[in-house]
Amino acid sequence: MARKRVSQSRTRKPPPAVRRFKPSFRWNGVDLEPYKLAAHGGGEFRGASRQVLIGNLGEQVKFHVRYFELQAGGFTSLERHHHAHVVIGLRGRGRVQVADQKFALGPMDTIYIAPGQAHQLRTSGAEPFGFFCIVDAKRDRPRSVSS
Amino acid sequence: MARKRVSQSRTRKPPPAVRRFKPSFRWNGVDLEPYKLAAHGGGEFRGASRQVLIGNLGEQVKFHVRYFELQAGGFTSLERHHHAHVVIGLRGRGRVQVADQKFALGPMDTIYIAPGQAHQLRTSGAEPFGFFCIVDAKRDRPRSVSS
Repeated sequence: MARKRVSQSRTRKPPPAVRRFKPSFRWNGVDLEPYKLAAHGGGEFRGASRQVLIGNLGEQVKFHVRYFELQAGGFTSLERHHHAHVVIGLRGRGRVQVADQKFALGPMDTIYIAPGQAHQLRTSGAEPFGFFCIVDAKRDRPRSVSS
Repeated sequence: MARKRVSQSRTRKPPPAVRRFKPSFRWNGVDLEPYKLAAHGGGEFRGASRQVLIGNLGEQVKFHVRYFELQAGGFTSLERHHHAHVVIGLRGRGRVQVADQKFALGPMDTIYIAPGQAHQLRTSGAEPFGFFCIVDAKRDRPRSVSS
């Protein structure tokens, strides 16, 4: 009985310490997931990929750190949910719509998207737009906004 | 009675959406805090500053995003605590000691420091070493490791 009580997170292999950055905006040991497959169904999106830097390997934190990249002309679905987003620009430039406001976002610009605010991200210009998106580990599913 | 039940986070002014990045590695509207004053007492550290990008303004997330910068020759105290760290290099290069391992950290390299692991960060070379450090919002105080 006692052995059964040991939680899985304690018995499995600890997460590796380092995810090393590569100039291609990939991180060593981190899978590249097409956003269409990785994210929620429904909604519209285009030319998007996701890498989960922190959150898939049993890290003992209450948040997940993901890197998204949108190709030229790419965008995420216009969506809303009960959890907040923190978005930090990293590569190229983008535009972010939050409720009825629009913001330009460049490298290291940081934006807080509060719970319930409809939002959408788009690439500006010819370079891909890459950004960190940090969210609570426990969160609701995004829902598309049809208007 | 009903009005008293409205939580403070709902009644106070919502956090601003954008913290815009400046080439000086400052963010608009974010205070620069000397680490010595801002962080825990005790321990040794040198040439360190902190900017809290997310976490001081009632953002509804279970994590805080901070940017630390260590000057040339700077370092943080060797410390441990029950909460985990996620560190993402941003400016310059550094070295990170985690338990008995040492890692070089450059821009965008990401490191997970598990709960209870003694750790210390140092600048490598002449350029300041700047990094994001993301932590759970609810966390214990760091304790210096004297050995």
